[in-house]
Amino acid sequence: MNPSFEILKNKLGELADIKGAIALMMWDQEVMMPKGSIHLRARQLGTLSGMQHEKFVKETGEILSILNDQQADLNAHEQQDLAEVQREYTRMTRVPTQLIIDLQKGAAEAQHAWELSRKANDFSVFAPALSNLVALRLQEAQCLGHSGNPYDAMLDCYERDASAASLEKLFVPMRQQLTGLIHAIQAAPQVDDSFLYQPISPQAQLAFSEKVLEKMGYDFTTGRQDISTHPFTIGMGSQDIRITTRVKENDIIEMLYSSIHEGGHALYEQGISMENYGLPSGEYCSIGIHESQSRIWENNVGRSLAFWEHWFPTFRELFPDKLAGKGPEDVFKAVNKVSPSFIRTSADELTYHFHIMLRFEIENLLINGSIKVNDLPSVWNELLKNYLGIGPPDLLNGVLQDVHWSHGSFGYFPTYSLGSFYAAQFMAKAGETLPDLQKSIEKGEFSAFRNWLKINVHQKGRSGNPENLCKSVCGEGLNVEFFIDYAKEKFEAVYGIRI
Amino acid sequence: MNPSFEILKNKLGELADIKGAIALMMWDQEVMMPKGSIHLRARQLGTLSGMQHEKFVKETGEILSILNDQQADLNAHEQQDLAEVQREYTRMTRVPTQLIIDLQKGAAEAQHAWELSRKANDFSVFAPALSNLVALRLQEAQCLGHSGNPYDAMLDCYERDASAASLEKLFVPMRQQLTGLIHAIQAAPQVDDSFLYQPISPQAQLAFSEKVLEKMGYDFTTGRQDISTHPFTIGMGSQDIRITTRVKENDIIEMLYSSIHEGGHALYEQGISMENYGLPSGEYCSIGIHESQSRIWENNVGRSLAFWEHWFPTFRELFPDKLAGKGPEDVFKAVNKVSPSFIRTSADELTYHFHIMLRFEIENLLINGSIKVNDLPSVWNELLKNYLGIGPPDLLNGVLQDVHWSHGSFGYFPTYSLGSFYAAQFMAKAGETLPDLQKSIEKGEFSAFRNWLKINVHQKGRSGNPENLCKSVCGEGLNVEFFIDYAKEKFEAVYGIRI
Repeated sequence: MNPSFEILKNKLGELADIKGAIALMMWDQEVMMPKGSIHLRARQLGTLSGMQHEKFVKETGEILSILNDQQADLNAHEQQDLAEVQREYTRMTRVPTQLIIDLQKGAAEAQHAWELSRKANDFSVFAPALSNLVALRLQEAQCLGHSGNPYDAMLDCYERDASAASLEKLFVPMRQQLTGLIHAIQAAPQVDDSFLYQPISPQAQLAFSEKVLEKMGYDFTTGRQDISTHPFTIGMGSQDIRITTRVKENDIIEMLYSSIHEGGHALYEQGISMENYGLPSGEYCSIGIHESQSRIWENNVGRSLAFWEHWFPTFRELFPDKLAGKGPEDVFKAVNKVSPSFIRTSADELTYHFHIMLRFEIENLLINGSIKVNDLPSVWNELLKNYLGIGPPDLLNGVLQDVHWSHGSFGYFPTYSLGSFYAAQFMAKAGETLPDLQKSIEKGEFSAFRNWLKINVHQKGRSGNPENLCKSVCGEGLNVEFFIDYAKEKFEAVYGIRI
Repeated sequence: MNPSFEILKNKLGELADIKGAIALMMWDQEVMMPKGSIHLRARQLGTLSGMQHEKFVKETGEILSILNDQQADLNAHEQQDLAEVQREYTRMTRVPTQLIIDLQKGAAEAQHAWELSRKANDFSVFAPALSNLVALRLQEAQCLGHSGNPYDAMLDCYERDASAASLEKLFVPMRQQLTGLIHAIQAAPQVDDSFLYQPISPQAQLAFSEKVLEKMGYDFTTGRQDISTHPFTIGMGSQDIRITTRVKENDIIEMLYSSIHEGGHALYEQGISMENYGLPSGEYCSIGIHESQSRIWENNVGRSLAFWEHWFPTFRELFPDKLAGKGPEDVFKAVNKVSPSFIRTSADELTYHFHIMLRFEIENLLINGSIKVNDLPSVWNELLKNYLGIGPPDLLNGVLQDVHWSHGSFGYFPTYSLGSFYAAQFMAKAGETLPDLQKSIEKGEFSAFRNWLKINVHQKGRSGNPENLCKSVCGEGLNVEFFIDYAKEKFEAVYGIRI
């Protein structure tokens, strides 16, 4: 290895160590931390985030400029890593360390306010902390630079080169297609899913999810599953990737698909080699690609008939009535029931994207100053009415349902839809390459599929924008037709219709 | 506040934030971390420890020299803090950052080796990692400086101004006194404690310990109790102080006194004001004083007849036979049964100190090069035979029982005995000041006692060596006569003898 590149790699490894500590503090805050420790944790997170930023900006500039002069001595992988680090360096030097600290502290405080606000069903408890975060992220967008729309600078933080305009181009025709599909479904005989909502002990639910996770290949020797309000995956480096789920006695389905979803995220990070620890090639590509890995397992695999062909016999044993008279196809249909609802995370695969479009639209308005934080509850309700024809009974079922804004993560939501679109495209490609894919899923055998993802997606790390990764996997950039085709085929089967 | 002092305080606050992150990583490693993450965690701990050291050495020197010129502008508290930070700075600048990183990494790896070694009952699995730690700590002792005995430099890390010679002065007469007491006890009719060892569910045991901890005043809103192999207390700052205990179905006593012991440690740290966060006045005085706070609760309070007068009725309910025919005095006697045994942490209050003297003697020999790491098992067994007349059946009951050496904490063990000696002296003083102390313990009321400790010990933080703190609390330095008197009085009552 080029000695200067080795210096850079070691420095980035130290930065990854700090990131790992921050990730652990965040995991602990959600899963383990005593509630009264929140202010202390906020200041500690602020300090570490500031340090990580300061160290990156102060300590990599010199070696980067040396390496830029030595590019000819680097191999193609090293050149790619160098270009990625240089890009990040240029971005980060534009943001003052104090702003990073303020954002981290502001987010910790806002999350606390969000929780109190949910308890009180009172948006005004959350509003001041949220306004503070909007102001801070606007400052950050100003530092990062954008061509007119500060929201673009935020989108780019999660999905490189995404913009409000490019997303609208995807969402506008998608809205039309989905509306057509949903209307056809609403005209068909409805699916019964009531038999799934029976009391099952949390222990038995979790044990089932662990069986599925193990079969997926989630490595429990370098991971663990816990309970949290909002399921998430967090990584301290590929040798410590943790997931959470949530458990309600009468809803094993929510628990199961949360586990599979987070398990998919975790497989992505466990699939990245420790050899590239700290380097861009040892990191995930983008949030949208990350989301494709959770959704491909949750929806394309986990909500398929093939999946239930294998898992139904074990699943049935959990139920008080052993699901008498039901078969794999009944569960397949039930877990794909389409019905407008209030909560994004439990929405079906079609109406889900309206939840995202709503948030995308609101964020764009908020960041551009067209609406204020205090307008959020009413704008939310109005848009939900327009899109899905329903109005939430309270704030928990409405504007206060997601944790993201309390983290200041404006621009994050669209990556969920992108994830679904990428997942459909990757799944189609995997099906081409692995002709026995559906048969192996029917047998509960996931290893060929997991390896395909590992080689084609996970181990590529970050070496360019998600569009480039998609091209290297599929031979073309993002093409939402794959999602439309997938959705039509699946929901025609679920509802017995032809569209 | 003097503006330069404020700069120093902010800098030390940031260092405390890093220490908090390190503490969380260590807590997580013992309680939550997947086993396969150990190497990643070791490197992350190494990086953060190195950063903390480097930051302290690089970033406080200038402000310290400014403040040393402005001493006249500082109040007495600030002057005291300044002197303490200056002392630490002088010590730390002598140790290279790389050595700190190596020590932290070496300790994480050694702990893993220790665990494997315990599983295999094979000392050779642990020996190489332990030898590495000995070499590293000898290097550190060389950097810190000492007047001939490198072990003194290690003792001073935990108990300022302690030395092998000063400890021998305490231990030699103590050994004689204790031997006399133990002989008198062995000649008396023996205590029955067999009725305590009955199956009680872990949940019920933990619930009982939580009741006791709450009454002690341990604040669960800024703390939590978990299970670990070796009970410990860890603080991320006084607003996040966590304890662990261990639970065996047939041994509620070990669980209970582990909880009370760690609860005492935790009360010390919870009793320190967040106002002094990062400053020496916001930190504990020494490990020996820390240990006095755990032992005063565990032994002087928790193993008293007065304690059981209150808790017996609740305690009895946990037992399958409801302890029929037994009363508070039977439990008081049973939990004070004196009997030579293999495991330090479950030893009685008298033979306990032989376990410490043994470790003290072995460490002194090892660090001075009189024996080698590979000699440890045989030297251990030989000394145990001399002191207590028994020989351990295996390594888990012998040289591999304690986690301390796997942390490289040579010089730590003597602080346990010092803790007992300080505890007896503090308890005597508390009894003078609070004439109703015993009566309040009989009623299960601990608040006056806890407040006395808070005001006299906890809130004083670190402002000099432990000897000075002892003088400020008791009007004289450490006086082991208090422990001898306490032990005589207690064990005369337990065994119905006169010595």
